[in-house]
Amino acid sequence: MSQLKLGIAGVGRIGKIHLNNLMYRIPAANVVAAVDVQSAGQEFASSLGVAQVSGDFQDLLDNPEVEAVLICSPNDTHADYVVRASNAGKTIFCEKPLDLSLDTVRHILEVTEQNGTPMMVAFNRRFDANFRKVREQVVSGSIGDPHILKITSRDWGPPPLEYVAQSGGLFMDMAIHDFDMARFIVGSEVSEVYARGSIQITPEIAEYGDIDTAVITLTFENGAFGIIDNSRQAAYGYDQRLEIFGSKGMSLADNKKPDDHRLYTVAGVNETKPMNHFITRYMDTYLEEMIAFVEAAREGKAMPITGQDGLRSMAVGLAAGKSVVENRPVKISEILG
Amino acid sequence: MSQLKLGIAGVGRIGKIHLNNLMYRIPAANVVAAVDVQSAGQEFASSLGVAQVSGDFQDLLDNPEVEAVLICSPNDTHADYVVRASNAGKTIFCEKPLDLSLDTVRHILEVTEQNGTPMMVAFNRRFDANFRKVREQVVSGSIGDPHILKITSRDWGPPPLEYVAQSGGLFMDMAIHDFDMARFIVGSEVSEVYARGSIQITPEIAEYGDIDTAVITLTFENGAFGIIDNSRQAAYGYDQRLEIFGSKGMSLADNKKPDDHRLYTVAGVNETKPMNHFITRYMDTYLEEMIAFVEAAREGKAMPITGQDGLRSMAVGLAAGKSVVENRPVKISEILG
Amino acid sequence: MSQLKLGIAGVGRIGKIHLNNLMYRIPAANVVAAVDVQSAGQEFASSLGVAQVSGDFQDLLDNPEVEAVLICSPNDTHADYVVRASNAGKTIFCEKPLDLSLDTVRHILEVTEQNGTPMMVAFNRRFDANFRKVREQVVSGSIGDPHILKITSRDWGPPPLEYVAQSGGLFMDMAIHDFDMARFIVGSEVSEVYARGSIQITPEIAEYGDIDTAVITLTFENGAFGIIDNSRQAAYGYDQRLEIFGSKGMSLADNKKPDDHRLYTVAGVNETKPMNHFITRYMDTYLEEMIAFVEAAREGKAMPITGQDGLRSMAVGLAAGKSVVENRPVKISEILG
Amino acid sequence: MSQLKLGIAGVGRIGKIHLNNLMYRIPAANVVAAVDVQSAGQEFASSLGVAQVSGDFQDLLDNPEVEAVLICSPNDTHADYVVRASNAGKTIFCEKPLDLSLDTVRHILEVTEQNGTPMMVAFNRRFDANFRKVREQVVSGSIGDPHILKITSRDWGPPPLEYVAQSGGLFMDMAIHDFDMARFIVGSEVSEVYARGSIQITPEIAEYGDIDTAVITLTFENGAFGIIDNSRQAAYGYDQRLEIFGSKGMSLADNKKPDDHRLYTVAGVNETKPMNHFITRYMDTYLEEMIAFVEAAREGKAMPITGQDGLRSMAVGLAAGKSVVENRPVKISEILG
Repeated sequence: MSQLKLGIAGVGRIGKIHLNNLMYRIPAANVVAAVDVQSAGQEFASSLGVAQVSGDFQDLLDNPEVEAVLICSPNDTHADYVVRASNAGKTIFCEKPLDLSLDTVRHILEVTEQNGTPMMVAFNRRFDANFRKVREQVVSGSIGDPHILKITSRDWGPPPLEYVAQSGGLFMDMAIHDFDMARFIVGSEVSEVYARGSIQITPEIAEYGDIDTAVITLTFENGAFGIIDNSRQAAYGYDQRLEIFGSKGMSLADNKKPDDHRLYTVAGVNETKPMNHFITRYMDTYLEEMIAFVEAAREGKAMPITGQDGLRSMAVGLAAGKSVVENRPVKISEILG
Repeated sequence: MSQLKLGIAGVGRIGKIHLNNLMYRIPAANVVAAVDVQSAGQEFASSLGVAQVSGDFQDLLDNPEVEAVLICSPNDTHADYVVRASNAGKTIFCEKPLDLSLDTVRHILEVTEQNGTPMMVAFNRRFDANFRKVREQVVSGSIGDPHILKITSRDWGPPPLEYVAQSGGLFMDMAIHDFDMARFIVGSEVSEVYARGSIQITPEIAEYGDIDTAVITLTFENGAFGIIDNSRQAAYGYDQRLEIFGSKGMSLADNKKPDDHRLYTVAGVNETKPMNHFITRYMDTYLEEMIAFVEAAREGKAMPITGQDGLRSMAVGLAAGKSVVENRPVKISEILG
Repeated sequence: MSQLKLGIAGVGRIGKIHLNNLMYRIPAANVVAAVDVQSAGQEFASSLGVAQVSGDFQDLLDNPEVEAVLICSPNDTHADYVVRASNAGKTIFCEKPLDLSLDTVRHILEVTEQNGTPMMVAFNRRFDANFRKVREQVVSGSIGDPHILKITSRDWGPPPLEYVAQSGGLFMDMAIHDFDMARFIVGSEVSEVYARGSIQITPEIAEYGDIDTAVITLTFENGAFGIIDNSRQAAYGYDQRLEIFGSKGMSLADNKKPDDHRLYTVAGVNETKPMNHFITRYMDTYLEEMIAFVEAAREGKAMPITGQDGLRSMAVGLAAGKSVVENRPVKISEILG
Repeated sequence: MSQLKLGIAGVGRIGKIHLNNLMYRIPAANVVAAVDVQSAGQEFASSLGVAQVSGDFQDLLDNPEVEAVLICSPNDTHADYVVRASNAGKTIFCEKPLDLSLDTVRHILEVTEQNGTPMMVAFNRRFDANFRKVREQVVSGSIGDPHILKITSRDWGPPPLEYVAQSGGLFMDMAIHDFDMARFIVGSEVSEVYARGSIQITPEIAEYGDIDTAVITLTFENGAFGIIDNSRQAAYGYDQRLEIFGSKGMSLADNKKPDDHRLYTVAGVNETKPMNHFITRYMDTYLEEMIAFVEAAREGKAMPITGQDGLRSMAVGLAAGKSVVENRPVKISEILG
């Protein structure tokens, strides 16, 4: 089977990681075209041996060699790029979110479905070794019927205000990963959400209608419950833990740490703190998700994460936001109709 | 200072523990009278050297030597015994619950307040070394301002149906310990509760209107949030964990285990399971709470846990029950007025 | 079966613990006589209800009620008391060491064997839950054939010089527990010892010919090896760990801690230090060993730890001392002939 | 500063890792020539863009562009290649061992010293995050003066007999990493060694004079002691732990695991086993050591690990072998004169 030929749109922080993985660590793939509006991104792509480099997304679509497109450009370009790539017959890998508007996401899904476009939405955490093992144990029946899911997801520090302004808020920007993870781990859709939110860390975000602290209750269609707690700032690092409890036991994923060291002194026993940034914490997942995408694209297999996953997780986020405002449980059917 | 002279009502499972501790491990106390309707309880008390043993609670009240009364008899006797002991001028230690009726508990509090009766309600878990250390670190400021409290409290197995029938239900019987713990750890009263509950383990309890699985969101007056998850049956033992997250960090109490052993084989690394029963898990707390009660009673100090704690924790339980039925957040003021 | 009637010689630190356990926690036993040369010890025994209290060891032997004698008096009385108790037909529980002289210990064993005296030597650590579980897994075959035993045994702080002067030195006073543990865990006798020792903590002990730091290699008759490291002072507490590695795996006992707490802050993740004194660390073992002694004495079963265990562990200590002086491996047969 | 131009000899398992790292992950380096006697190795090098690929080591030396040579070829070529590369004026990175003959290693050191050749010997484990942190805490004084070092180093399974035949034996092939680590962590040279060894796993190795199980006592020049235990087969994975104990505390490195997962069921609490192969366990170190080598080579800084380190660690291994045969402590001065 020949290599999958890809074009990448956006060679920023995450685009560089994907490009590096595709060029050097995934023999089955080859990036033949790259687009970035900034020269730094273009130069990076050239230095890695990408043949066609430009500033115009259309160039990717016009290149007949390009079979699949990676959309790693700013969030507000995602919807436009996805639709155009779909119409151009390309397979699509898109960073989350597809869009912050529910109508737009629905439009995207219609277009890609009509076109029969294979599309993967990049909820990279599904490829984390810790969470993967938890999911495997749910699937294998090790914990029996799932009763309670617990996710703790706390950032290492608040984002800059400019980021907050366009982020869609804590639920759509940060907790959406947890909503997707919840659906993935439990293996059932969320039917209802109750959320409480507050500002504990950065009062300035009030003017954007955002929050930085939240606790969320999920009810799943299979009867399980989920509880999620979020904060934009954990003083001790990036806190990413998860457990699922069921009729036969519990499967638990603890934080990853940069080493396995302990110091014992008169002052106590000191362990290493959890990793401190999502890039380092989830670095392995970027490679794994890209391998999975390339494999699905080459072999015509079902995409491991779909546009429906994007829509469904987004709906949980919208319901959570509505729940905070109205202080009541909100059904997903109120969001999706 | 002379020994505190006590009378004990009820020499069953928990009464025996208290009696043993008071006779053998607390030099400042002496149990001079015991009441039990069953001969086994009376014989146990005699064998430990209690001077006056009988089947009638009134005997405790009539004994002028008795300064303090321990109420360890069945739950439906608590209210009557507390009121009579208060009127008889005795200091009171009462196992939870004071009563399952809010009106009755209020009446108890009125009587004891009018009489100026020192009374301690036995939320023994406050004396656990793990939870105590968490509370100390909240008080000392180690975690900064509290933002999120998480309690996992899962029993090792469901109670018998006869017990369920008179228990008051999961919130009043089991989770009430978690509600008291939540108030203790955060150091603030609960203002609102949202709870979801279901039956996952023992369908038979439906006829008693009970549940065996629950997730609960608490909002505290100081702005912190709390999440609690409960189950009547954890396959791997009695799961009692807690963490509080704040502006400067997190303080976490893990499960206690009977030993500190690991077995490494080709099948994996196997640790010892958590302790498997509340009596073994919390054995240390029974001694500590009794020491604290005796000290407060002898020295006229404030009781470490009061009737108000009983009332407040009960109100959270009632609000949780109402929340499950009506599927909406319920304010404590709806319960307490 | 009637209670075992005991007499206790020596009501000091360890004697008080045994007395308390026997009087209050072991229904099958009753202490009817106590001897202590100091009034404090006598008063303690009286306060616990011991009927006959005096200052003369002979009183225990002359009391026909006394079936078993506990020898908790100073080390230099052990040999004399054991021989006299044996000749008086009493069953014996003796704190370690039987004596610091090999000839004397041999004499003791001859006397007790001739008299057919059941005698238990108090290597209490064999009754620790952690180490017991390791031993069980060796016996059950979980780790296969034992290849390597590792013991880390480090005190929380050096003993006073007066204690050092009469202690017999690090190997006979402190490491002897590890030698007994090594024999117990591996289930085979030590055949050869190589040890290195030095003074790292308290230079003053040089004049007593003692050391405070040691590493020891054991060769067992069954072909396994053992390594032990000792220090008189671990800054972080009392370090008592052990692991045994075999053809099928490893069984490991970690330190016991007073709680299961972790604090996460910007400064790191802080766990609780190990327990800080042998009395607290091994408190549970004193009860368990006494239960085992009482059971063996009442039921005429074999003593769980014998005078031979005392002799064999002592021989390892003597070999270790000789090894340090001569810097060569020393066979146990060089010691025992 | 321009890129360092390298040539690599040997593109097998470890050579491929170095080549990949140098080409894709170390911008400061460029591999311009590769040598391998097998076409597979040559093709791999070509596919990564190495310009000059051949089967003759001399080609590396003759290429004037090549500033530094990586020797990753079979062990029996190391000595010859190092001497020739040194005489050709190349900077050298050589996999361990330099040679199995002490005389040959001494000759290599003479040649490289006379030529002023910068040479690094690849004790990659020094670059492991766990062990690095332990070393940092020794250097920073966190544990005070080092008293006792403990290394547990157990392979996941025995090597094939053909490998054993030419390996130099357990001490020279496997434990030599531990000897280098011991010197690195303690920061002092070993002065004396006592070792016990046996065959517990593969009786067939007896004919090669090898062992598969060993315990080793080290005495360091600074007065610290070290204990090492080795096995060729740990049923539960590759066991690589280390701790150093000193006057102020202990610094400890536990095993690395592929994830941070625990499963709680009625059968117990199951953790993930340690990583199961040296390549995965130490993958990070190969990149770090190469970065360090490139930096030292480009900037003319002292090599982080030198030929002297190779010689000194080898001498410990030879002393250990002699100690097993003669069952006595052996001074390093007996080996090195």
